[in-house]
Amino acid sequence: MQQEHRECIDMCYACAAACDHCAASCLNEQDIDMMRACIRLDTQCAAMCRLAAQFMALDSDYLSQACRLCVDLCKACAEECARHEHQHCQACAQACNACADACLKMAA
Amino acid sequence: MQQEHRECIDMCYACAAACDHCAASCLNEQDIDMMRACIRLDTQCAAMCRLAAQFMALDSDYLSQACRLCVDLCKACAEECARHEHQHCQACAQACNACADACLKMAA
Amino acid sequence: MQQEHRECIDMCYACAAACDHCAASCLNEQDIDMMRACIRLDTQCAAMCRLAAQFMALDSDYLSQACRLCVDLCKACAEECARHEHQHCQACAQACNACADACLKMAA
Amino acid sequence: MQQEHRECIDMCYACAAACDHCAASCLNEQDIDMMRACIRLDTQCAAMCRLAAQFMALDSDYLSQACRLCVDLCKACAEECARHEHQHCQACAQACNACADACLKMAA
Repeated sequence: MQQEHRECIDMCYACAAACDHCAASCLNEQDIDMMRACIRLDTQCAAMCRLAAQFMALDSDYLSQACRLCVDLCKACAEECARHEHQHCQACAQACNACADACLKMAA
Repeated sequence: MQQEHRECIDMCYACAAACDHCAASCLNEQDIDMMRACIRLDTQCAAMCRLAAQFMALDSDYLSQACRLCVDLCKACAEECARHEHQHCQACAQACNACADACLKMAA
Repeated sequence: MQQEHRECIDMCYACAAACDHCAASCLNEQDIDMMRACIRLDTQCAAMCRLAAQFMALDSDYLSQACRLCVDLCKACAEECARHEHQHCQACAQACNACADACLKMAA
Repeated sequence: MQQEHRECIDMCYACAAACDHCAASCLNEQDIDMMRACIRLDTQCAAMCRLAAQFMALDSDYLSQACRLCVDLCKACAEECARHEHQHCQACAQACNACADACLKMAA
């Protein structure tokens, strides 16, 4: 696997794990009413990250397009997570931003 | 769920099943050397169809973009499958074309 | 594809769509505090159903085991959904029970 | 996320990436006739690893069962990959064995 692919795959899977963990943790928070958008985006972002990672590891002709869509999801999820002070939200925002950066380069 | 979403979800999942079945069947064909591109596209198309279906059922803000990428995968997979006379390839080409049509409307 | 496989695949994907729709709808309900377990199980059940369907379409040697785990998820999700009067929960409970039945036969 | 979960998630995603890469590389090998079982198992193992990782990050009640099934897939895939001298097969066998070990502990 090319080194650039490998790094972006790692970012995508790290982001998927952070999103899943954030969604599950939000579902346990007392202020769940505030976390609706966060849970919604976490779930979609995790799924998209897994697809982008799969397409990169498969060296797909469509990996640029998948990465571009992944950038959009990651940015939206990062923006929402950054609004919340929960540790899992802050960690997720960071993972999303890192993944968005990596996917943006990959999509270019 | 909206009726239009439901129909497109059904098309996506039918296409995913046809692609998976085609990939597995190609792996059993004597002329596997000819089926490389078919297996490759089947796998990617199935994964993309599942994601598009998930995004529609979740009523995601990103369903149009997911459907647009799904159209590209479905068209490429249909074109490749249509070249082969195996029954599973012909059936897959049909499912891919039907899914591409449905996703194109959904993406609009 | 064998007819029995095809029917069970359809049940799994119908269940995945119902679960995704239920999760997204729960996230919009006023009484979201009551829907935590429902959202949690919906997400996991949808993912498991997609994997079981994929394994069946691939005619995997591991489809029985995947279907068995799918039965457990579907039953748990059906039980939780049945407690709630929301239409999406009731529809999801029904889809989960139908999928559990189909997967149980497939796993045998 | 618990440290033990995090490590096993990393192993699962590393294994998924190795399996996807091995499948795609096998599809480019001249001796593709010998690689049928390898491609078949790679695809299933990658999908199972992604589900197990998702269930762990979600802290699912079903993560032990998912990890147990993941062990079976990883062992089968490792055994098949180990038979082939291609570098991607050897690397995949190693990733599968490491993932099987981690999932076995997690399932306990």
